[in-house]
Amino acid sequence: MMTAEHPFDRAIALHSETGAERTGHTSPDYWNAISPFGGTTAATMLQAMLEHPDRLGEPISLTVNFAGAIKPGNFRVQARPARTGRSTQHWLAQLHQGDDPAPAITATAVFALRRDTWSDTESAMPSHAGPEGLERYAPPMRLPFLERYDIRYVDSHPFAGGASSQTQCWIADVPPRPLDAAGIVAHCDAYIPRIFVRRGRPTPIATVTLTVNFHADAASLAERPCTLAFAQARANAFRGGFHDQEGRLWAEDGRLLATTHQMVWFKE
Amino acid sequence: MMTAEHPFDRAIALHSETGAERTGHTSPDYWNAISPFGGTTAATMLQAMLEHPDRLGEPISLTVNFAGAIKPGNFRVQARPARTGRSTQHWLAQLHQGDDPAPAITATAVFALRRDTWSDTESAMPSHAGPEGLERYAPPMRLPFLERYDIRYVDSHPFAGGASSQTQCWIADVPPRPLDAAGIVAHCDAYIPRIFVRRGRPTPIATVTLTVNFHADAASLAERPCTLAFAQARANAFRGGFHDQEGRLWAEDGRLLATTHQMVWFKE
Repeated sequence: MMTAEHPFDRAIALHSETGAERTGHTSPDYWNAISPFGGTTAATMLQAMLEHPDRLGEPISLTVNFAGAIKPGNFRVQARPARTGRSTQHWLAQLHQGDDPAPAITATAVFALRRDTWSDTESAMPSHAGPEGLERYAPPMRLPFLERYDIRYVDSHPFAGGASSQTQCWIADVPPRPLDAAGIVAHCDAYIPRIFVRRGRPTPIATVTLTVNFHADAASLAERPCTLAFAQARANAFRGGFHDQEGRLWAEDGRLLATTHQMVWFKE
Repeated sequence: MMTAEHPFDRAIALHSETGAERTGHTSPDYWNAISPFGGTTAATMLQAMLEHPDRLGEPISLTVNFAGAIKPGNFRVQARPARTGRSTQHWLAQLHQGDDPAPAITATAVFALRRDTWSDTESAMPSHAGPEGLERYAPPMRLPFLERYDIRYVDSHPFAGGASSQTQCWIADVPPRPLDAAGIVAHCDAYIPRIFVRRGRPTPIATVTLTVNFHADAASLAERPCTLAFAQARANAFRGGFHDQEGRLWAEDGRLLATTHQMVWFKE
């Protein structure tokens, strides 16, 4: 390699001797308050599928369920195709730690061979200046993973309060890294929790499930590499200890990279 | 029972002798073109979790992956909690037919005990008259499951074409049935495929993955039963043989019942 490995690639790296099970290690670079940043965990689940020798095509959709807290240290990821068709492949994956028989993470995914078809994007990237001239967001808590993202809000400070949870920002890896499917997944969990936005301050939260739907294929990402993305998110509802989040992620040049949604446990 | 069983309840009914595996049968009432309506299949996966003796709480999120075509006849559903915490529970489920070792369906879900918290709904139901006075949608293909929904579009015929895939409609079970979690799941797959809307005609499609995020709890649905819902959906992008769909479902009285997302394979 000509360049030093990016901390994100180290964070999602897996090693395998058998092919059936891969082992990884939590990353201090992407540590959150009491467990790893969910975005790297979700990207690691995808990585186990991407590296699998039986993989067909590329990710269309990934759902990651955060069942238990991951502790610092090693973990094991099992990923296997549940069913493979001519052009689509469905995946199951789990992450375990130590001798705990219950998985900390479960995941499913759909992979497919992309085809040339009629296409259109209905969700155009909002037109905003930047990110040069915009201030880099300084989070109220110094969490390691937040140092790994350069986030610049375009309209208002996310803790400004108000009746809408919508935020819009430019986002880039620190240091810069061209987005691939794994990077897109992590970006999709880097949105500030919507309950923080509505309450104007951090509160205890935990994502319980995250889905990423992919709209840009690997060929497009390779042809026109993207190190800067525009991210928009909002919630539909906060109720009974859970709220949702719907997000969109565009490349700097306006390509829609992914749409994402999650359900978040909150205490408030 | 005082009343005859609703065809939807027959369609998602499961029988069990051991508790570990439940058996069901495809429903002629909810048959689609070449396989069962995905909404009843998704609801059946949820039903297996709802009926499980170890269930904790109620559904927060459900993801169902359509891996293979279901044939007419019996099927087996295995659902098990992958991890149970104090207030949340994560589920894995699969559906098999015959001696096929690969599942036709995989699913994950998060269940939880709802708590009384700060709450707000950002996505208010659009204000539209009806459904009285609006024409019931007559689909171009006579598919059995479409007879089971009374759908009335509020703004334009879904095949009117145009640059937006958004549709808005009133929707009710035929005959009327109070919505519960299973009914909500099926409603979330009853939206007309977005590619039909954009191309102005039916084309070959298949939902590959569907997620439902639940915003109304069982107590609310029991206290104020709802047999009429308002449904809104749109796509963000159509590309490389797949498009997404984002939907919202409100009760007639304005309660947000669910938000839903899917990825759809299409040929065009």
